[in-house]
Amino acid sequence: MRTLVASGVDVCFTNPGTSEMQFVATLDQVPDMRAILGLFEGAVTGAADGYARMSGRPAATLLHLGPGLGNGIANLHNARRAHTPVVNIVGDHATTHLRYDPPLASDIESLARPVSIWFRESKTAGDLASDAAEAVAASFGPPGGVATLVAPADLSWTEVAGPAAPVKARKREPASADCVEEVAKALRSGEPAALFLGGTALREKGLLAAKAVCETVGASLLCETLPANIERGGGLPDPERLPYFAELAIARMEGLRHLVLVDVAAPVSFFAYPDVPGYLVPGDCEVHVLAEHADDAPATLQALADALSGVDSRSEKADSTAEASASISAGRPDRPTGPLTAETAAAAIGALLPEGAVVSDESNTSSVFLPAATVNGPRHDWMCLTGGAIGQGIPLATGAAIACSGRKVLSLEADGSAMYTMQALWTQAREGLDVTTVIFDNRSYAILNWELSRVGAGAAGPRAKAMLELDHPDLDFVSLAKGMGVPATRATDAEQFTTQLERALSEPGPALIDAVLQR
Amino acid sequence: MRTLVASGVDVCFTNPGTSEMQFVATLDQVPDMRAILGLFEGAVTGAADGYARMSGRPAATLLHLGPGLGNGIANLHNARRAHTPVVNIVGDHATTHLRYDPPLASDIESLARPVSIWFRESKTAGDLASDAAEAVAASFGPPGGVATLVAPADLSWTEVAGPAAPVKARKREPASADCVEEVAKALRSGEPAALFLGGTALREKGLLAAKAVCETVGASLLCETLPANIERGGGLPDPERLPYFAELAIARMEGLRHLVLVDVAAPVSFFAYPDVPGYLVPGDCEVHVLAEHADDAPATLQALADALSGVDSRSEKADSTAEASASISAGRPDRPTGPLTAETAAAAIGALLPEGAVVSDESNTSSVFLPAATVNGPRHDWMCLTGGAIGQGIPLATGAAIACSGRKVLSLEADGSAMYTMQALWTQAREGLDVTTVIFDNRSYAILNWELSRVGAGAAGPRAKAMLELDHPDLDFVSLAKGMGVPATRATDAEQFTTQLERALSEPGPALIDAVLQR
Repeated sequence: MRTLVASGVDVCFTNPGTSEMQFVATLDQVPDMRAILGLFEGAVTGAADGYARMSGRPAATLLHLGPGLGNGIANLHNARRAHTPVVNIVGDHATTHLRYDPPLASDIESLARPVSIWFRESKTAGDLASDAAEAVAASFGPPGGVATLVAPADLSWTEVAGPAAPVKARKREPASADCVEEVAKALRSGEPAALFLGGTALREKGLLAAKAVCETVGASLLCETLPANIERGGGLPDPERLPYFAELAIARMEGLRHLVLVDVAAPVSFFAYPDVPGYLVPGDCEVHVLAEHADDAPATLQALADALSGVDSRSEKADSTAEASASISAGRPDRPTGPLTAETAAAAIGALLPEGAVVSDESNTSSVFLPAATVNGPRHDWMCLTGGAIGQGIPLATGAAIACSGRKVLSLEADGSAMYTMQALWTQAREGLDVTTVIFDNRSYAILNWELSRVGAGAAGPRAKAMLELDHPDLDFVSLAKGMGVPATRATDAEQFTTQLERALSEPGPALIDAVLQR
Repeated sequence: MRTLVASGVDVCFTNPGTSEMQFVATLDQVPDMRAILGLFEGAVTGAADGYARMSGRPAATLLHLGPGLGNGIANLHNARRAHTPVVNIVGDHATTHLRYDPPLASDIESLARPVSIWFRESKTAGDLASDAAEAVAASFGPPGGVATLVAPADLSWTEVAGPAAPVKARKREPASADCVEEVAKALRSGEPAALFLGGTALREKGLLAAKAVCETVGASLLCETLPANIERGGGLPDPERLPYFAELAIARMEGLRHLVLVDVAAPVSFFAYPDVPGYLVPGDCEVHVLAEHADDAPATLQALADALSGVDSRSEKADSTAEASASISAGRPDRPTGPLTAETAAAAIGALLPEGAVVSDESNTSSVFLPAATVNGPRHDWMCLTGGAIGQGIPLATGAAIACSGRKVLSLEADGSAMYTMQALWTQAREGLDVTTVIFDNRSYAILNWELSRVGAGAAGPRAKAMLELDHPDLDFVSLAKGMGVPATRATDAEQFTTQLERALSEPGPALIDAVLQR
C-alpha cells in the first residue's frame, strides 16, 4: 500500500472479502490511502474508471477472487475501451491453498485477460510491492488501460522489508514529422477532408489545434460517437459527433476524400445490421493516421497546425484561445415549460449546467438533444459510454466526484442502465459526494425497441415487447434512492424538473431526480 | 428456440441486447418457450441455477456479449460448483463485424471458459440448432454444469431449414461393484468411519441408503458444509454438516480412520488461514471414493447398504421410509419472543416453515441456528451457497419459484449479499412469484469482521472497520423492495418478525421482511 501511495495511487475503491483482509487492516497504518467501499464490484470498477478519467491518475480497486472480478468486468471493459488507467487488484486464495480447488477458486487470469493490458500474479511476498509499482506504470500505457495484479492471501500476510520504488511510466511522444507532413500534404490538396478525433485529442489543447487545422484547410471537424471525456463549453471548439446509427454516419461522411484519424480507430458501426456496411468510411476516401492511441495527440495536432499555417504555434494558440473565450456562454436554452420529454429535460440541463460541471452521460436514447442544449454553456467535462457496456454511469459519476471535489457532478442515467449498478448511490451517500443523478425514466429499454426492427427481426409481438419494457411493475426510483440514503424527487413536467434540478445543483451532497418522460 | 423446447428447455431467463433481438422476436412464434426478463445478468444466471436445482432440467439464459456474460459470471461460478445444468446463451456481434473490433467486442471464450464445462461458438446458421441440442445434452454432464453457446447475430438473422433433433445426455451409472466392495470392506473393519455426502447424494433416496449404511456399521453421517440442494424435514435422515471454520471441521473429524466420499471432494477449508491446515482430513484417516460427481450416487449408496446388510434393497428401502415417516414434524421450535436475533429469527422460521417449502439460503453468518430450527419441520428443500460467490440468493429463489409453482419459496438473505443482485426482486414482482424474502439485517459484512482477526490481520482500526460496516447510511430494505414492486415490512423484535413472516407465508406473491437484528 505504501508503494501504491508513493507511485501516486492514493485512492482505492474496494469490495473486499476474506482474502483481502490484510489489505483492509493496513488502511489504519497508511493514512494517505483513501479507501472507498462499494457494495458491488461493478460500482467499484466503474468508480475507478470515473476517477481516472477526471484525475488522469489511476485509482486502485480491491476485488475478491474470480467472482468478484467477474462482477467488475463490464465496467473494466468500459475502462479498457476508454483507455483509462486502472490498477485492478484482485485477491486470491493463498498459493498453498489453490491445490485443493476450494469453492471460490477459479481461473482469474482467463477472466482478467480480456479487459487487461497487463496481468501479473505475484509469486512471492517480496514481489508484491515491486509488482504493484509496475502495475501502476503499466496502467498508464500509453495508451492507458487496466493493469490487473493478483495478490494471493499468503503473500499478503507475510512480512516484507518495505515498499518498492515507483516505476516510471512511458511517456507519450508526438507522431513523426514525416507522418505529420504526409497528412499536411493530403489536406493541402483541397479535396474534401475531415479530422476525426478521439481519446486524448478531445481536451482543450487538441481541440484548439484541430480547429486551427480545419480553418486553415477548410476541413470538417468530427469526433467519435461516445468520447471517454470531452472538454466542452466556454467557447471551446465543438467537433461534430459521428451519429450512432450506421446509415446516418455513412451519409455524414459521403463525399469525403480524406479522413484523418487522431487517437481513434476508423469509424465502424456499433452493431452490424443486415445489408448495412459495418465499416463506415466511404470506399473512395483515403484514411490517414495522424496519431495512434499511444501518441501525444494534442502535440501532433499542433504540429500539423503549424505545418499548415507556417506560423509559430504559440501565437496561433494564443489567437485560438482568445477567439474561444469571446464566445463563452452565448445561447444557452431557456428554462423549458410543458411536458417533460427528452427534449425539454435537455433544455433544462442546458439552462442550468454549472460552471465546471462534470457530466457522466449514460442517457442513451434520451441523449439526443443533450449535446446541442449544453454546448453553449460554461466549460465542463462530458464522459460517455465509450465501451458500450451499460451500468457505467452511476459508478463513473461516483469516482469522478471523488476526483473532483468542489465541482458538481451531473449523472445522466437511462432507467434501464441505472438498474445495473445502482449500488453506487450508497457510496455517494456515504461519502457525501456532490452528485446530482437524473433518471431518464421512459420505462423501456428504448434502444432495443429501435434496434428490434433495424436488425430485421420484424415487428415485435406482445411476448417480444415484454422483454423490452420496464413496466409491470414500474420501477420507483425515488424509493430505490431513498433505500440507499440518497434524497430523491420525482418530476412529471418540465417546470417541476427544472425546479428540482436547480435545487439539486445548488445544494451540496447527492440527490436524484426521477424524470418521468412523457411516452 | 424450437430445438431448445424439443430438448426440454422451455424456460429462458433473459437480459438481451441488440445482438439478441432475433431470439426475442422469435418468442411470439414459439409459445412453448417462457421468457423471463431480469434487469441484470447476475439475476438471470442465478435464476437459471435455482430453476435447475429444483426442476433437474436446465433453463436457458440469454446474455448480451462479453460484458453481459461478465455480469453473469459470479452466479455461473456458483452453478459450476453446484453442478447445475445451465444452457448459457451469449449473443455476439455478427461474424462479419468482429473484424472491426467494435466497442462491445471482447474475448467471450476467455470469459466463459472458467465457468463452463462446454463451450462453443456457432460457425454457421445451420449449426445453431444442432449446437443448441448439443449444449442441452452437455449441460447435464454428468455431472451437470454450464454449457455456453455463443450465437453470433448474423447467424441468428439467417433463415435455416428447421430445428435439430434433441441429443441424448449421458446417463449416470452406479460406481463399480469392486469400488463398493472396497468401501464395504473398510467399513466392516469396525474402525471409526464416516460417510461424507455431497451433491446428488443429498436427496431422499441417497439419504435413506446412507443412513442404512451408517446404522449397520456404526459410522457417522456427515455432509458438505454448503449443499447445492439437500432434502430435509419430514423425518428424513439429517446428516451433520461439516463446520465452516477449519478448526471446528478438523476437531469434528479427529479420530476418524475412514472417510467415504459420495459425490463430493475430500473436505478442504473455504479459505486458508496462517498456521491452520487447509486439508481437513486427519493424517491417519483413509479416504475412500465411493461415488464420483458423475456417478449415480444414490444407487451406489444403496448398493453399499445392500452389500453391508446382505438383504435385498427394496425391503430395506421400504423399512427406512416407514421409519422416516414416523418421526415427521416432531419438535418444531415455539414461536419466539423478545429481541430479534439470528437465533429468534431462526426459531420463527422453524416454527412456520410450510410443507414443501423451497429455501434459498444466503444468510451466511446469520445461518448458524437455522439447520437445527428447521430439521424437525415438514419436508422441504434447502439450497446453499455452494460456490461461495455472494449475490446468489435472491436470483436463486426467483428461478426456484419459476420451477416450483404451488410451493412457497423462502429466500433467506444476508444484508450485504442482498445488495449484489437485488434486481431479481423486480422479476419476482413482475412474474407474481410466491417468494418470501427475509433480510438478516445486521448492517455489516459480519463474516469479514470474523475473518479479519482469523487471517492474522490484527485488530481492526477505525478505517478498516469502515470497510466492513454497512451503516452510514443504513440501507433501507423496505424502500428498496418497494422500489422494485415487492411489498415489504420491517421487524425489530421477535414477535413482529413472526407475525410478519406468518402473513407473508400465508399470502400469495412476493413479499420482503427487513429483519433488523439486535447487534
